[in-house]
Amino acid sequence: MASAGHQPPSAVSVAGGFVALDWGTTSLRAARLDAQGRVLDEHHSDDGILQVPFGGFPQVFAAAVDRWQLPPGTLCLASGMVGSRQGWIEAPYCPCPADFRAVAGRIAWVPDAPGGLRVGIVPGLCTEERDVPDVLRGEEVQVFGALDLLGLHEGVFVLPGTHSKWVRVSQGRIATFATFMSGEVYALLRRHSILGRTLPADEGPLDEPAFLRGVRHAREAGSLLHGAFSARTLALFARLPDAALPSYLSGLVIGEELRAQPLQQRSAKLVLVGAHALTRRYQLALTAYGAQASTLGDEATWRGLAALAHTLESP
Amino acid sequence: MASAGHQPPSAVSVAGGFVALDWGTTSLRAARLDAQGRVLDEHHSDDGILQVPFGGFPQVFAAAVDRWQLPPGTLCLASGMVGSRQGWIEAPYCPCPADFRAVAGRIAWVPDAPGGLRVGIVPGLCTEERDVPDVLRGEEVQVFGALDLLGLHEGVFVLPGTHSKWVRVSQGRIATFATFMSGEVYALLRRHSILGRTLPADEGPLDEPAFLRGVRHAREAGSLLHGAFSARTLALFARLPDAALPSYLSGLVIGEELRAQPLQQRSAKLVLVGAHALTRRYQLALTAYGAQASTLGDEATWRGLAALAHTLESP
Repeated sequence: MASAGHQPPSAVSVAGGFVALDWGTTSLRAARLDAQGRVLDEHHSDDGILQVPFGGFPQVFAAAVDRWQLPPGTLCLASGMVGSRQGWIEAPYCPCPADFRAVAGRIAWVPDAPGGLRVGIVPGLCTEERDVPDVLRGEEVQVFGALDLLGLHEGVFVLPGTHSKWVRVSQGRIATFATFMSGEVYALLRRHSILGRTLPADEGPLDEPAFLRGVRHAREAGSLLHGAFSARTLALFARLPDAALPSYLSGLVIGEELRAQPLQQRSAKLVLVGAHALTRRYQLALTAYGAQASTLGDEATWRGLAALAHTLESP
Repeated sequence: MASAGHQPPSAVSVAGGFVALDWGTTSLRAARLDAQGRVLDEHHSDDGILQVPFGGFPQVFAAAVDRWQLPPGTLCLASGMVGSRQGWIEAPYCPCPADFRAVAGRIAWVPDAPGGLRVGIVPGLCTEERDVPDVLRGEEVQVFGALDLLGLHEGVFVLPGTHSKWVRVSQGRIATFATFMSGEVYALLRRHSILGRTLPADEGPLDEPAFLRGVRHAREAGSLLHGAFSARTLALFARLPDAALPSYLSGLVIGEELRAQPLQQRSAKLVLVGAHALTRRYQLALTAYGAQASTLGDEATWRGLAALAHTLESP
């Protein structure tokens, strides 16, 4: 891993546009944006950081942006696991509470980036509760983008996924957050547990009644350790058709994530950020809890990186 | 699978002793008992029902009891997954609430068992709460054995394992029970999740402080989906040595199982039944909840089968 500094090599200008990269564990998304942050072109690949060979980050990066023939000095901002210890350069976690400027000030700059480009890597965030730390990388940019897109300064932002993040924003700052291993635990139960034996290999379309039944049972069961077993017994007694089991199990896991939230006490606005297929499930589940949320798609990432780019230009 | 009846072929006598079998998914334990239920000889093998080839149950059974040269007509009682749909013959679940006699009356008798032996298979139990069934097989015998050994008619019996069972006994009957997939989820997180990357391959001895820290965090986290991520972040920030992580994760999972129990409201006696290595962990975790339990080892299985044998002799 190369060493990095927190100062950009020289004054930043995005007058000619810039590049945004969402570089995670399993995929790389890159976008060419104009000065106003509008997406001109976008490109996806499977070159997540786990696929990059040792010392291979400059090459993979160059290949991803090569199509745009960027002039030297162009700003390229990357967020996600690319800033982790296993990434290109480490961008140490920024402690919460953190606002926009705090994060911008801790961007790690890649020394001697390919093509004379200015490559900055956005740090993730860390928080701590009762001596237990929690971390995120990439979601901070999505939350800042969502704040910008919705004109909000307060709220609870839910970013569902392999590791779902519940992020609390207060006065424009990320106050704290919590990770839930929902997507990963769903996959574990589906692929490696005894429940997998009765679940069809094919995920199939969402069966809403089965999904909502799972959400309800999660609430009643009080723990997924108990609730998950119902996916087996309902199959055993033919109370649910096998084809409905993946939706039911998904409801159990998402329902468990919601059970652990103080949804009833919360007056803060709830915003779901992510791909539609997933945010739709969370919206369905939230209705079972009498809660409502607005949703945003992946555009929040580009908006967040654009807002950071503008902060860098006029700090 | 052979068909079975609920009537023993003729009057049962255990005057010459009998044989007890604990025949589960991955192992087979068999014991020769005298008329009073004392163990004369015991034998273990890996011939769990998943290892038995199609149609192979009579042969595996005969090989297990052959050493004792049993006279024809000797009673052999088996409990566990051998009575499941994947077992020798299916012994349909007995519905809760169920006492000793109800279970004895639903023993499934193997027709034409090897050597003219009288082979009975103890049914498991089923219960239902809010339209969701739950099941167990084998633990019913352990609970009946524990009641007999301790002279109890009431209590909550905890049988930790791959699928832990919390069994509530009232007036000598098993009133209801609940399954927790604790052992299985621990193995999934350990072997297949992102947490496995920082956990040492070797389980190592129990690190009590790390275990109890996991138990406490499970209680605070409110859901294992959230709490489990702390095994990653504590490793990431070097707050726990890698060698302590298996104990910490075990504390998180067992702590989650306890979090979901109404331990504070409970006045009923709590009894842990199982192998010492596991019941010791549950006792440690229970102390963190201010609860106490007595413990019993695997002798409860033989005692339960002996008590059933005597019930059959003089119904």
